[in-house]
Amino acid sequence: MGMTMAQKILAAHSGHAAVVPGQLIECATDLVLCHEITTPAALRMLEERGMNRVFDPSKIVAIPDHSVPAMNIKAAKMYQKLKSWVQEQGIRHFYDVGRGGIAHVVLENSGLLRPGQTLVSGDSHTCNGGALGAFATGVGSTDLAGAIYAGRVWFKVPETMLIRVTGEMQPGVTPKDLVLEVIKRIGADGANYLAMEWAGDTIDRMDMEGRFTLTNMAIEAGGKTGLIAVDDTTRAYLAARGVTPEQYTEYTSDPDAPYKVVIELDASQVEPTVAYPHIPSNGRVAGTDRIPVTHAYVGSCTNGRISDLREVAHILRGRRVADGVQMIVVPATQAIWKQAAQEGLLEVFVEAGASVSYPSCGACLGMHSGVLGPDDVCISSSNRNFVGRMGDPSAQIYLASPATVAASAVAGVISDPREYAAGGPGAAD
Amino acid sequence: MGMTMAQKILAAHSGHAAVVPGQLIECATDLVLCHEITTPAALRMLEERGMNRVFDPSKIVAIPDHSVPAMNIKAAKMYQKLKSWVQEQGIRHFYDVGRGGIAHVVLENSGLLRPGQTLVSGDSHTCNGGALGAFATGVGSTDLAGAIYAGRVWFKVPETMLIRVTGEMQPGVTPKDLVLEVIKRIGADGANYLAMEWAGDTIDRMDMEGRFTLTNMAIEAGGKTGLIAVDDTTRAYLAARGVTPEQYTEYTSDPDAPYKVVIELDASQVEPTVAYPHIPSNGRVAGTDRIPVTHAYVGSCTNGRISDLREVAHILRGRRVADGVQMIVVPATQAIWKQAAQEGLLEVFVEAGASVSYPSCGACLGMHSGVLGPDDVCISSSNRNFVGRMGDPSAQIYLASPATVAASAVAGVISDPREYAAGGPGAAD
Repeated sequence: MGMTMAQKILAAHSGHAAVVPGQLIECATDLVLCHEITTPAALRMLEERGMNRVFDPSKIVAIPDHSVPAMNIKAAKMYQKLKSWVQEQGIRHFYDVGRGGIAHVVLENSGLLRPGQTLVSGDSHTCNGGALGAFATGVGSTDLAGAIYAGRVWFKVPETMLIRVTGEMQPGVTPKDLVLEVIKRIGADGANYLAMEWAGDTIDRMDMEGRFTLTNMAIEAGGKTGLIAVDDTTRAYLAARGVTPEQYTEYTSDPDAPYKVVIELDASQVEPTVAYPHIPSNGRVAGTDRIPVTHAYVGSCTNGRISDLREVAHILRGRRVADGVQMIVVPATQAIWKQAAQEGLLEVFVEAGASVSYPSCGACLGMHSGVLGPDDVCISSSNRNFVGRMGDPSAQIYLASPATVAASAVAGVISDPREYAAGGPGAAD
Repeated sequence: MGMTMAQKILAAHSGHAAVVPGQLIECATDLVLCHEITTPAALRMLEERGMNRVFDPSKIVAIPDHSVPAMNIKAAKMYQKLKSWVQEQGIRHFYDVGRGGIAHVVLENSGLLRPGQTLVSGDSHTCNGGALGAFATGVGSTDLAGAIYAGRVWFKVPETMLIRVTGEMQPGVTPKDLVLEVIKRIGADGANYLAMEWAGDTIDRMDMEGRFTLTNMAIEAGGKTGLIAVDDTTRAYLAARGVTPEQYTEYTSDPDAPYKVVIELDASQVEPTVAYPHIPSNGRVAGTDRIPVTHAYVGSCTNGRISDLREVAHILRGRRVADGVQMIVVPATQAIWKQAAQEGLLEVFVEAGASVSYPSCGACLGMHSGVLGPDDVCISSSNRNFVGRMGDPSAQIYLASPATVAASAVAGVISDPREYAAGGPGAAD
């Protein structure tokens, strides 16, 4: 029997010619991504055991992103811990504050993460990187400590769910809507411990930014990771970052790979989708209920990329954020921030009455820079709408695409972005 | 005997033909500025007494700025309190998040604050507004409650210190250096309960932005307020904001005004000045000691204006923030943010490796977005370097001009900005 992409990558990293789902393996890690929130706990474990070293400094990537520039004294100490460890261990791949941004998005653009690799990090959205054809997954601080020290982790080889997406997306529909539709269908536990492999002509035509949005959300269906096979789009993306084909290995699932389940999705039937509180699977068509919002958030490792910001600017240009709505736009990295500045997008946001933040995870997980208060209602381009995720437990979070967030910010109520084509409501003149 | 500007304004607002220093008066307030940190406490006092009303909704200006977009759930609640009060009382002058910025700088640009007025706020840097020839001062929450309810406050009429500044400032020297030099000379208690009136040909030639920096820092010498008489520069500034001469009253000190003390300052002798920890009067010439820094902060109500940002960009263009230094740039208002974006300044900052924040008081007072950790060393364009002001009590804060902050960020050590003329160290090519 053949193997899936996930199996093949794990086999290659565990010294096996083949692995089967359910098999326990010890897997080598090509990269370990470390941010300032979960890494200090892992380092403490190692220090307490006299094991304070890293298996290979060149395979550690350190990127503070959650609580920096420091949101309080405790955060400053966690940042200091990461920074001093980086210096002490000679870790070169350190994207300091002002040089990096949201870790997953910095990494995807860095040229360090490559097809066929294994990546772990103490962060649940590490699955983001799977769009590059790597096996990327989040682990707890104990496994993170092991990976830092030994460059190895234990995995149970996952089964794979194939999601085959075909057809043209309607105008106004984005990859975020596709993934919200899939999670709606399968449930927030619908892919528990499965590798979610995306394929089909819709994916073939999709740019890398959209693909990252898809794999990023795997964890919101319980997935172990998301995966997309390498194609010319991937190769061109890597080449633009100085990565040559000799530097990576392409794995594809065999025709007789043992998929646990195959989901067929007709992209042309997907509409702008909003996941209602308090679970990402609670999707409905955007604008079905015109729910008043107090906050509109564009950002996160899911949707803070330049294409996202362009979509938001397209809707906000010449329009104003509704009175009473706080809109916050957070470019995911410094490079994206600069690009958006150069394209004039940031001026559009501020002109419309939005706040533009430095790159940060801040509001997405209720840490800082836009924490929700009691009964606040937020339309958000982020990935998770659990109770209390973005602040007060009584706040309501609706997940959507950046376009839907922008349309809703202008209307003051959750809206369908297709209403905001040029000349739509609230347009200038 | 004649009167000073301060006396004349207070006399006109207390129903007296003349007032003398030391006299206790009940003074009418033309404007009450309310932010989300000190206002809720004042409102609670009023509510507990069944006095929840405002004397005149058109004379209240509400601007959340310290902890927004909300830095945590508590901050979100304080913001909500301010916002709901604004709605309930019909307060029109509400600069919501995304529409305003740092309250003092929003107010100075709003056209609401005018010469001859009295302004109070529950914020010590309210003295900032005195550059417009108004009597502007910070009060505690109790006095703030009284002002909100009755439009009146008790004052003891202050004596006045005249600071006469003459001569040309050297290139690289800024108004911030002048005020740090004055505070160095007179001490951090050198102007206790005095109105600090600035005059002289140097002030005559100074633009409004520089003047606000001077009056803003009055409280750092213990001053009750800072004041600068109206001249053509002031009139043009007001006209550009739609304020006509009929809408304000100009007061000037009489030739025989009873100044308590006159300070004479030769601006041509002032050098770029850095106030060492832990008091703003601890000034030395910039670069005397090349102290390594971990943080460089440009922002605050003192120095987050467009002219400040231009000076910083002038030094950062084609250079990089030194490795190991976190630089944070915070335009003071959304309007300044947009202007800086349009001029391409923000790109320069990010290209150099600085983080650019939404407008906020954040790091200046150690609230969020750049809080210092143990033993951090920060060169800051802000106004106060007390122990713990910006975070951990062991952190060291050095106050300086934006130019000195930029030069120090590039060098990694506290530096003289005059070293960074075009072609200086670290310039591109």
